[in-house]
Amino acid sequence: MNFFAKHQALLERARQACRERGHWSPFPDTAADYPDAEQAQSAARERFEAQLGRPFALEQPGTVGELGEEVSPYTQAPLGIRYPRADPDALFAAAEAALPAWAEAGIETRIGVLMEAVDRLYREALFEIALAVQHTSGQSANMAYAGSGVNALDRAIEALVHAEDAMRAVPVQARWARRFGSANVVLDKRYRVVPRGVAVCFSCASFPTWNAWPSMLASLATGNPVIVKPHPAAVLPMALSVRLLRRVLTEAGFDPNLVTLALDSTAEPLGKVLVQHPATRIVDFTGSAQFGVWVEKNAHPAIVFTETSGCNTVVLESAADLDAALRALATTLCMFSGQMCTSPQNFYVPRQGVRTPSGLVSFDEVARRLAAAVQAIATEPRRAAMILAAIQAPQTVALLDELEARGAEVGEVLLGSHAYPHPAYPAARTRTPLLIRTDTRHRALYGQERFGPIGFVIACEDAADALAQATTDTREFGGLTAFLYSEDEAFIAAAEAAYARAGAQLTVNLIGPMPLNFAAAYSDYHVTGLNPAGNASLTEPNFVTSRFRIVQSRRPAAA
Amino acid sequence: MNFFAKHQALLERARQACRERGHWSPFPDTAADYPDAEQAQSAARERFEAQLGRPFALEQPGTVGELGEEVSPYTQAPLGIRYPRADPDALFAAAEAALPAWAEAGIETRIGVLMEAVDRLYREALFEIALAVQHTSGQSANMAYAGSGVNALDRAIEALVHAEDAMRAVPVQARWARRFGSANVVLDKRYRVVPRGVAVCFSCASFPTWNAWPSMLASLATGNPVIVKPHPAAVLPMALSVRLLRRVLTEAGFDPNLVTLALDSTAEPLGKVLVQHPATRIVDFTGSAQFGVWVEKNAHPAIVFTETSGCNTVVLESAADLDAALRALATTLCMFSGQMCTSPQNFYVPRQGVRTPSGLVSFDEVARRLAAAVQAIATEPRRAAMILAAIQAPQTVALLDELEARGAEVGEVLLGSHAYPHPAYPAARTRTPLLIRTDTRHRALYGQERFGPIGFVIACEDAADALAQATTDTREFGGLTAFLYSEDEAFIAAAEAAYARAGAQLTVNLIGPMPLNFAAAYSDYHVTGLNPAGNASLTEPNFVTSRFRIVQSRRPAAA
Repeated sequence: MNFFAKHQALLERARQACRERGHWSPFPDTAADYPDAEQAQSAARERFEAQLGRPFALEQPGTVGELGEEVSPYTQAPLGIRYPRADPDALFAAAEAALPAWAEAGIETRIGVLMEAVDRLYREALFEIALAVQHTSGQSANMAYAGSGVNALDRAIEALVHAEDAMRAVPVQARWARRFGSANVVLDKRYRVVPRGVAVCFSCASFPTWNAWPSMLASLATGNPVIVKPHPAAVLPMALSVRLLRRVLTEAGFDPNLVTLALDSTAEPLGKVLVQHPATRIVDFTGSAQFGVWVEKNAHPAIVFTETSGCNTVVLESAADLDAALRALATTLCMFSGQMCTSPQNFYVPRQGVRTPSGLVSFDEVARRLAAAVQAIATEPRRAAMILAAIQAPQTVALLDELEARGAEVGEVLLGSHAYPHPAYPAARTRTPLLIRTDTRHRALYGQERFGPIGFVIACEDAADALAQATTDTREFGGLTAFLYSEDEAFIAAAEAAYARAGAQLTVNLIGPMPLNFAAAYSDYHVTGLNPAGNASLTEPNFVTSRFRIVQSRRPAAA
Repeated sequence: MNFFAKHQALLERARQACRERGHWSPFPDTAADYPDAEQAQSAARERFEAQLGRPFALEQPGTVGELGEEVSPYTQAPLGIRYPRADPDALFAAAEAALPAWAEAGIETRIGVLMEAVDRLYREALFEIALAVQHTSGQSANMAYAGSGVNALDRAIEALVHAEDAMRAVPVQARWARRFGSANVVLDKRYRVVPRGVAVCFSCASFPTWNAWPSMLASLATGNPVIVKPHPAAVLPMALSVRLLRRVLTEAGFDPNLVTLALDSTAEPLGKVLVQHPATRIVDFTGSAQFGVWVEKNAHPAIVFTETSGCNTVVLESAADLDAALRALATTLCMFSGQMCTSPQNFYVPRQGVRTPSGLVSFDEVARRLAAAVQAIATEPRRAAMILAAIQAPQTVALLDELEARGAEVGEVLLGSHAYPHPAYPAARTRTPLLIRTDTRHRALYGQERFGPIGFVIACEDAADALAQATTDTREFGGLTAFLYSEDEAFIAAAEAAYARAGAQLTVNLIGPMPLNFAAAYSDYHVTGLNPAGNASLTEPNFVTSRFRIVQSRRPAAA
């Protein structure tokens, strides 16, 4: 089967989308539109439930025992799945052994096999992976399908498009002729795309597939084997992905050890060992800012792609429909309980208030209405379940309690956080958002990512100060996204320029049903690399171009 | 003046050359073919001589005294030029202040101004810079014109081509529309190319312009200001370059502080301060492996492009014309006294000898004939002056003496090193090559760059061992170039594969007048990034793509 030919038309369409950056996806936006959705979902549920409490079948080298500590945020019961624990040296050795044939296979073969893997993830594994995401990360079923499913596949396709373009831009051969003195020197030159070597891909607990799939496919497309190191709390989505990729590689005649799983535990983390393994040449990391900075500083000679944390900002200067703006912000803050790297956290509001067509709305009133908009979501369990979903980690619950206790010190608790009753999962780990009013004297409080459903409404001197504070904080503490409401075109232009320098992707004056932080594959760039929120941008050419290198050989042309 | 329009045709032709990778250059290969060469050379000599012993006029911010310790390798007398010593903080502040207008100017304006700068370097400064290179680095006049002059300008043009391509690949705007539930969301998106920030460019003592010009232009083209930190032994080539760039920027209406000079001294080096300055976002480094690794490990959060050292290898398996091969190798070893990052150092030869049409030539005989070929160059002062030129640093002379003294311990001194009488400069610091016969037990001796005219002829078990040793050493110790002589196509294919994994650019069976290590702009890639010899490849797209980032802003489309 020529997989490249099979998927070429789709890849071409994806290339057009990457260039034009309009809306497009080969996949249905919602689970309901998936072919034979009900049957597929019920089959996936059967497979998922059959896996619970059992060893996960994954034949790979160097297995030395088993590990597994996943707990569903929805049931708060252990999943009970035991995964092979691998000897890292065995994985690296197997990966290095698998590399040459994969590198030799060439661009079209690799891209074809990986497009087939994307297609198989979609057709064979999507709902099972979505369930795995739901019961490890705590996402809603909808988000697990859309955000962790098809949208992540789209980002992976983007990586394949850019990988193919970048590798094809390297000429295969050239004839070169020049006079040196009286002699004519004619050389034939051959250029090769050479993979860097073994890649280590860390996936995170709250959104495992979204960054990992593009990273894995970017490395594989450019010829590098990948060792996947999932967060111990969210292994199943990656174990399923690794197993399927190994199967597709095997069927295509390649060594499945091009993709392996390196599991660790909270008690015995393996991350530093993998990053500093002598064979590591590429590291993709999604996770905490603290470990992310360590990775960036200590991975040398490996190259590093990171997405760490977002201290994302909102500036409210003026609004044509303030309540619609606050509803949109509230929904976005609530979305997956603020556990998205793109969730807003810091709301910078002029002390004198926000301009609206019906006059100035005071700072206190803006804060009160934002709290009310959040409250409206949080107090309606069915809506809360759809939007807030569940809390991935117990630490987030502890952080909410800690910050709520400190609220009065720094201002006022506008909205306390509490568990809400999940309609389908009575034992679910849930919390409604915490909203704190404060001011710029308490920058230490909000000047870092506070992971979870946590918002700070920050009183600023005026609109210019709000923008300056927000962009300075973005630049210093890292921010992926930013949200602005203003009816003043000069202010918008100033904000666009300031956020461009600060390195956050800006959304202006958006109201309505689209979550403000929705990042569309083929259209929206994710992370800029200009601030500490991460150095890798999904998915731009630079995400793939340095994963391979160019080596040449030249010799005199045959006479 | 629309500089982009003025230079567009040439840039298009350069783009074609980058794609097709045949021979091309807009510049004459030799000084003799430069327009009005004699007049230009004599005017340059007048300017150069008038500068000796005097302060270098460079108006830039933060000047706090003066510095200057250059000594001509040809006269071994101080140049006596005193340069402004700058307060680094003042340079960074000035660079940051200059950035926004340059970033806003847009792709065509920046590329146009920089093409004009290339043209002005060629038309107004080339011979003066060549003299400056000659009297700081010790290059011959021919090499200073060709290698440090036009070839370096060609590599700079390549950087501009790739910068333009990469930035133009970012769409300027897009309209995006998608249904969310019953609503149609239509967004207008704008994408901006945003520079990373201040770049620091280190230039080296032996070949200052070759890496620095492409680096500086790559950073500037993508919107970043550049602070140039020359090696204290070779300041003048960069001071002249910086001054000319500042002039062109000023004439084009931009802040000249986009390019400044940060000088230090051997006694008080400034490199670490510049690399770790909080405003540094890009570092280009050419120089020692030791400091290069420090830069790679400690520049975070800046991105780093390095070229450090080459432990370059030769494998002799068989040859159709062994003497021609040995002459080519001898010439290349002698070229600029082995002070090129592409100079061969380690010659791996099968213990049983090298196959030739007239039978096996023994290892000892190969070593002897190589020594004789080197000797033939070294003993003829006019030829020696053209090829060996002068020794840049007294440390190289000391190293030659030290290694020669150790020769007998590790094998045999095939050829001792001594000063040769330079026909034009009686006081020139010159040395003929040192050639040592050894074997693989003494890997510690040759397993690092021994900077200068130093060759090791290494006895290996057989041809396969020679290749394995050479490629292992390349991978472990770093190597940019490799040279192979073999009449066995299977062996050549194995060598191409092995060197591809090791990351050296291979030249096979080349004899004749072209120096084996000649790297042609638009055709040969320089450095692969796959081994410790450096991480940046001149000039491939990846050399520029990460110097800028993409930031977007999106808002609802006007109804």
